[in-house]
Amino acid sequence: MSEGADARSTSGGDGSIAITAAAIAVQVEGRVIGDVGALVCRIAPLDRAGPDELSFLAHSRYTSWFATSQAGVVLVSPDLADTIGRPATRIVVARPTEAMVKMLAHFRRPEARTGGIHPTAVIAPTAVIGADVSVDAYAVIGDGVSIGDGSWIGPHAVVGDGTIVGRHVRIHAGATAYAFVELGDRVTLHAGARVGRDGFGFIPGPNGPVRIPHLGRCVLEHDVEVGANSCVDRGSVDDTIIGAGTKLDNLVHVAHNVRIGKGCFLAAQVGIAGSTRIGDGVQFGGQAGAGGHANIGSGATVAARAGAIADVLPGETVSGFPARKHRDQQRSLAALNRLAKIIRPLEQLLDAQDAP
Amino acid sequence: MSEGADARSTSGGDGSIAITAAAIAVQVEGRVIGDVGALVCRIAPLDRAGPDELSFLAHSRYTSWFATSQAGVVLVSPDLADTIGRPATRIVVARPTEAMVKMLAHFRRPEARTGGIHPTAVIAPTAVIGADVSVDAYAVIGDGVSIGDGSWIGPHAVVGDGTIVGRHVRIHAGATAYAFVELGDRVTLHAGARVGRDGFGFIPGPNGPVRIPHLGRCVLEHDVEVGANSCVDRGSVDDTIIGAGTKLDNLVHVAHNVRIGKGCFLAAQVGIAGSTRIGDGVQFGGQAGAGGHANIGSGATVAARAGAIADVLPGETVSGFPARKHRDQQRSLAALNRLAKIIRPLEQLLDAQDAP
Amino acid sequence: MSEGADARSTSGGDGSIAITAAAIAVQVEGRVIGDVGALVCRIAPLDRAGPDELSFLAHSRYTSWFATSQAGVVLVSPDLADTIGRPATRIVVARPTEAMVKMLAHFRRPEARTGGIHPTAVIAPTAVIGADVSVDAYAVIGDGVSIGDGSWIGPHAVVGDGTIVGRHVRIHAGATAYAFVELGDRVTLHAGARVGRDGFGFIPGPNGPVRIPHLGRCVLEHDVEVGANSCVDRGSVDDTIIGAGTKLDNLVHVAHNVRIGKGCFLAAQVGIAGSTRIGDGVQFGGQAGAGGHANIGSGATVAARAGAIADVLPGETVSGFPARKHRDQQRSLAALNRLAKIIRPLEQLLDAQDAP
Repeated sequence: MSEGADARSTSGGDGSIAITAAAIAVQVEGRVIGDVGALVCRIAPLDRAGPDELSFLAHSRYTSWFATSQAGVVLVSPDLADTIGRPATRIVVARPTEAMVKMLAHFRRPEARTGGIHPTAVIAPTAVIGADVSVDAYAVIGDGVSIGDGSWIGPHAVVGDGTIVGRHVRIHAGATAYAFVELGDRVTLHAGARVGRDGFGFIPGPNGPVRIPHLGRCVLEHDVEVGANSCVDRGSVDDTIIGAGTKLDNLVHVAHNVRIGKGCFLAAQVGIAGSTRIGDGVQFGGQAGAGGHANIGSGATVAARAGAIADVLPGETVSGFPARKHRDQQRSLAALNRLAKIIRPLEQLLDAQDAP
Repeated sequence: MSEGADARSTSGGDGSIAITAAAIAVQVEGRVIGDVGALVCRIAPLDRAGPDELSFLAHSRYTSWFATSQAGVVLVSPDLADTIGRPATRIVVARPTEAMVKMLAHFRRPEARTGGIHPTAVIAPTAVIGADVSVDAYAVIGDGVSIGDGSWIGPHAVVGDGTIVGRHVRIHAGATAYAFVELGDRVTLHAGARVGRDGFGFIPGPNGPVRIPHLGRCVLEHDVEVGANSCVDRGSVDDTIIGAGTKLDNLVHVAHNVRIGKGCFLAAQVGIAGSTRIGDGVQFGGQAGAGGHANIGSGATVAARAGAIADVLPGETVSGFPARKHRDQQRSLAALNRLAKIIRPLEQLLDAQDAP
Repeated sequence: MSEGADARSTSGGDGSIAITAAAIAVQVEGRVIGDVGALVCRIAPLDRAGPDELSFLAHSRYTSWFATSQAGVVLVSPDLADTIGRPATRIVVARPTEAMVKMLAHFRRPEARTGGIHPTAVIAPTAVIGADVSVDAYAVIGDGVSIGDGSWIGPHAVVGDGTIVGRHVRIHAGATAYAFVELGDRVTLHAGARVGRDGFGFIPGPNGPVRIPHLGRCVLEHDVEVGANSCVDRGSVDDTIIGAGTKLDNLVHVAHNVRIGKGCFLAAQVGIAGSTRIGDGVQFGGQAGAGGHANIGSGATVAARAGAIADVLPGETVSGFPARKHRDQQRSLAALNRLAKIIRPLEQLLDAQDAP
């Protein structure tokens, strides 16, 4: 399945934007070794690139792939420029990865966007739709919704009553904004993202727990991105706010009344419990979490799988569970490993002491 | 985005249910300090409430917000009644949070529900739909489905063949009940919830693993709530049963053949492995888990991020991984922290002993 | 709700495939004790099986259920054949669980599949649809899509532009294949699965982080299964590849550029960070994870909740976080438990040594 003409046509680039090694070198400010006229029209990793494809070698770890690669042109770092390998045409650049990202934008096939409102979209008469808005098949737009210019609502997406959608927002297939959510400009909701659900709050009642009505807002500021199947609940009285430029990966959970600052990154499967406050520029590694009512200072890093249940100082890196300073955590782990070797002698030592 | 008239109109309450401080005091059994005629028509947190909004001060931690709050009326606890701050009209109540929840119900704008069956809903001719049922745009209802009175099926929801839906059930946008699921009365499936999938069971076969056919039921008893994008698999032979009144937060996983008792709470991202039995009134903190075939006794608490792989006694609180009594876990963590400081001297001591 | 005729009709089997104890015994190569003509038409667990239902007793743990079970026929292991209990007709088999799986296939009601393309499906004119393909209500098939013979696309599923779908593929309700994904034959995407999203990659830009354009492929080889609400991102330059026969449970995350081998099992809520390479036949327990750029050797086992951030050798079993050899991890945990009892005397011992 991963071979053959069909498969190849789906790889990196659409094959129609051919570019010479010389032209690439100009774009990435590099130097060509070999055939400056070599033409490539797609991007691919070393192990499957063909003669008409561009690849890159950024780390010595991949030299074995380079040795046999069929790539037509390869971006290489200065120290790897002379690596023995099949690719004859090489472009030497200081940072091959950054150069590659630049070329990705060149080759990236733009998403095909059909303009206008698909006839099957169900849009409430009271909704206000801006200019150049696309609404795909079977999307449902509720009462009083406002959608800013240039936004694109995917198939089966639901925008609940009263929700405000900024400009150039992208809502992917099957994502749900519940009622009264506020999305800033250039917000992205990936497929299956759910924002604005009533938070998980109950009070005891005579016939069992009763849901606390949630009236707080769910605000995603400009340039926020919410990954596939991630969830952000609305506040109860207080608001849930995700600061500008903050990015959430897939399957992330943000509970009610949480406030996250600007420019944070939450990797996949992170969970933030209710009413926690997170500063600007905070990073959470994968599967990490923060407990309820915690304060995570700006610039802090919560390592992968760490669980921060107490406050974290600005700029601090914490790990483990309960999370604490990474250095302390590592010291404890190291001590534990050494302990395993001496626990027996230590017990014997104490026994000997106790003996009369 | 979070300012201006538009944004304000989306915050807590619809602005048309104005109520005086005096009337609020009656409802919450409080005492007014200041202007008994002060009118509010929405609820908001202290830091963004305006003169026509009600707020509350339940903890001294928020007195700095109180100092400058523009809130028209504030619910305060007796010990905070004289806190220095801008809000002049205060209603003193024993428990401001409970009073606030009561007022939330007053201000909560009811979800706009269009009655009847949307013309785009696809409903099998053999499905039996009760009285006062709403079926929203593009919902799909399978063969032999039965939907009880007063239930509300959201847009793009799917109710699989043979599934039984109780009365006053709420299925939100894009949720899926696979075939032959049983939902009791007042069950809620939030957006993207998936219930009734064949569990993750395979047996070795001559050409690789073969799926075990699943015939067990997937039963959600009365008043069960399943959070956004959460998953509950059906049983293989045995059933998967979620007991009455049990609440699941977002992104929770419940595997096949699991039986959960009544009135349990599973916080976000909890995972319950196959065939585990959980009693009544059990609480799982966020990102916690229970291993396969474990028994978790009634009234037990599995702390956040804990992983219970062995049985947990009724009423016990466990934490850590592998989970054990919270007190033991804390003692071990404390010992580990103290160990880091003395591991070196301990090693030296043993070395000295070994020396001739 | 779990009683009554309606509920019964939804349990294991449709009641029309009655079979005698004698005929079952032939199928499972067992020996009947009691009435060889006893008829059953469904399967159920011991505690709710009725006189016309087959059940099984595979473990002494369930003998109390057996004592009062109403089951018409019960599969029992030789050592439990004489267990005291109500069921009179018993079929003795060496492995009752395997026999039960065999009978499950007999009783399993096949999913009702409507042939052809539902009139509400939106299919791009350039899409190529094979023979015997079902496309359910409101599915959306993009430009240039190719769907192999016998495949079945569920309601509200989205197949993005250029995506290649193999033969006998099953895409369940509301699942999303983004653009340019490649699905092999007999691939299953469960409800809400999201495959082919641009990975979570950003580079710093003058106005904040800029998304790295993703051109790598997202390839799911033959017989791959992706659980409900699970996510598999496409590669940036390199590809994301899930090897043939690999099974992902619910709520699993696989990041960009990950390569997973053949025949692996990833239990629910597992997360694999970017560029990690996983061999063949690897097993991940529930809520486990693997860090970025790690190598997990073929045949390795990553235990439940373990987090593998370094390489794992082929065939090795690792647990804990950071994950290491299971035996070492257990030894450390045991040492820690013993330490808690002696940390105080150890500190006192050192203090005594320091004293003059």
